[in-house]
Amino acid sequence: MNDLGKLIGVGVGPGDPNLLTLKAVHALKCADVVAHFAKAGNASNARAIVAQFLRPDVRELPLLYPITTEKPTGDSNYRSAIQGFFDDAASAIAAHLDAGRTVAVLSEGDPLFFGSYMHLHVRLMQQYPTNVIPGVTAMSGCWSAAGLPIAQGDDVLTVVPATLDEAELIRRFRQNDPTVVMKIGRNLSKVRRALAAADRLLQATYVERGTMEREMLMPLVDKPDDAAPYFAIVLVTGRAWHS
Amino acid sequence: MNDLGKLIGVGVGPGDPNLLTLKAVHALKCADVVAHFAKAGNASNARAIVAQFLRPDVRELPLLYPITTEKPTGDSNYRSAIQGFFDDAASAIAAHLDAGRTVAVLSEGDPLFFGSYMHLHVRLMQQYPTNVIPGVTAMSGCWSAAGLPIAQGDDVLTVVPATLDEAELIRRFRQNDPTVVMKIGRNLSKVRRALAAADRLLQATYVERGTMEREMLMPLVDKPDDAAPYFAIVLVTGRAWHS
Repeated sequence: MNDLGKLIGVGVGPGDPNLLTLKAVHALKCADVVAHFAKAGNASNARAIVAQFLRPDVRELPLLYPITTEKPTGDSNYRSAIQGFFDDAASAIAAHLDAGRTVAVLSEGDPLFFGSYMHLHVRLMQQYPTNVIPGVTAMSGCWSAAGLPIAQGDDVLTVVPATLDEAELIRRFRQNDPTVVMKIGRNLSKVRRALAAADRLLQATYVERGTMEREMLMPLVDKPDDAAPYFAIVLVTGRAWHS
Repeated sequence: MNDLGKLIGVGVGPGDPNLLTLKAVHALKCADVVAHFAKAGNASNARAIVAQFLRPDVRELPLLYPITTEKPTGDSNYRSAIQGFFDDAASAIAAHLDAGRTVAVLSEGDPLFFGSYMHLHVRLMQQYPTNVIPGVTAMSGCWSAAGLPIAQGDDVLTVVPATLDEAELIRRFRQNDPTVVMKIGRNLSKVRRALAAADRLLQATYVERGTMEREMLMPLVDKPDDAAPYFAIVLVTGRAWHS
C-alpha cells in the first residue's frame, strides 16, 4: 500500500508571476497533480499566473465552480450548491492523495485569506498530511503598486468585503482606520456612497489588476464609471500621513 | 552627470528564506547597495533572512535605530529622535541614489505594511524613482504555519497592534471579527485580559517565529507565561468555522 500523498495549498500571489515565492515554485515543480479553481467555461487565473512553472507532463485537476457571484451568498440554494461542489472537489483530490500523489492546489494571493483552498483544507486536514505555502496577498500587491503606505505605528487595519450591506460599510468606514475594500465587482457604486457618507471618499484609491499587465490605478473620485472586475480593490488611507 | 539611482523597497517575507519572491531575489542580486534596519548593537533580522542571496561584493548600509521600544511612541522625545533617525537614514540613501546607485532596502514582511521602509519611501519618493516589491506578511506566515483559515466570505479582518490601550483592545475584540494581534512583545498579559473581557480567549492561537526555525504555536490558553518576542502574533478566529 502507498503512503498517503500530501495536500499543499500554494499561494501564487497577486498576479505577477515573479511574485511567486521560491517555495511555491519548488512545490509546483515537485507536485504530481496541480489543481486549480475556475468558473465553468473560464480559464483559471491562478493557472495563468503559474503556467511557466508547470512541468509539461504534470497532471492537472481543474475544479470548476458551478456558480460564483450570480446568487447572494446567504441564499440556501447557493449554500448547498457550493458545499456540494467543495465536497466533490475534496473527494477528487482525496483519490489522488490515497494513491500516494502529492496534490498542489493553486490559490491566488494567500491560501487561507479569503481563498477557496481553505474549503478543501478543512475537509481533508484530518485524514491527510497538509502544508500551506503563504503567498503575497492581492492587497499587498495593490498598495505596493500604488506606493501607498497603508498602516504604521498604532494603526488598526480593517479589510472589508464590498459585499457587506451599505449601512455596515458606512459603520466600518466611520471608524477611520486604514481600510482595504475587497471584492469590488458590481459593488462599486455602493462603496462610493458609503465612503461619501463616512466622509472618506477623498482618501480612496481604486486599483484594478494590481501587479499585472494593464494595471490601472487612480483616485476613486477620478474613476468616471462604476464598472469594476471582482478582483478590483479600493484602498482607503486612515488619516494624514505622519512620517 | 549620472542618472539617479532607484530606491527599491524589498519585502523579504516572514522569516523562511524560501518565502522570498523571485522578484525580491532578483532585486537583491542586481542592487548596488543593500540597506537594512536594526537596533544598535543587534544584527538585522531581515539581513539574516536574505544572507544567502547577497552578492559577496555588495555594498551594505546598516541603518541603526537609536531606540525602539524603550519609550511610548506618543512621547515627544521619542518622536523627535525617531524622526531625526529617519531623516539621517534618508540622507545616507540619497547620497547613493545621487551617485546613480540602486539601493535595495530590506523589509521584513511587506514594506508598506507596518514596515520601517515606508518612512524612507515618503521622504524620497518625490525626488527619486522608487519601486516597492510586496512580500509575504508575518501574519500570513503565522496563519499558514497554524493551518488556520483566517477569513472567508463576508468576514471583516481586523489587524490590531497590541500596543493599543486595554479598553480599545476590548472594544476591537468585541466586534467579533477574525483578528490578528501584532507587536505582542511585553503586551501579552494585556492582550490576554482584553480577550477574556471580550469572551474570545478560547479562539486565540499564539504564534512565535512563524515559518522560522524553532517556530512555536499553541492555543493562547495553553501558554504558561507572558514572555513573548516583539514579533510574536496572536490569531483570533471570528466565529465557528463553516465550510
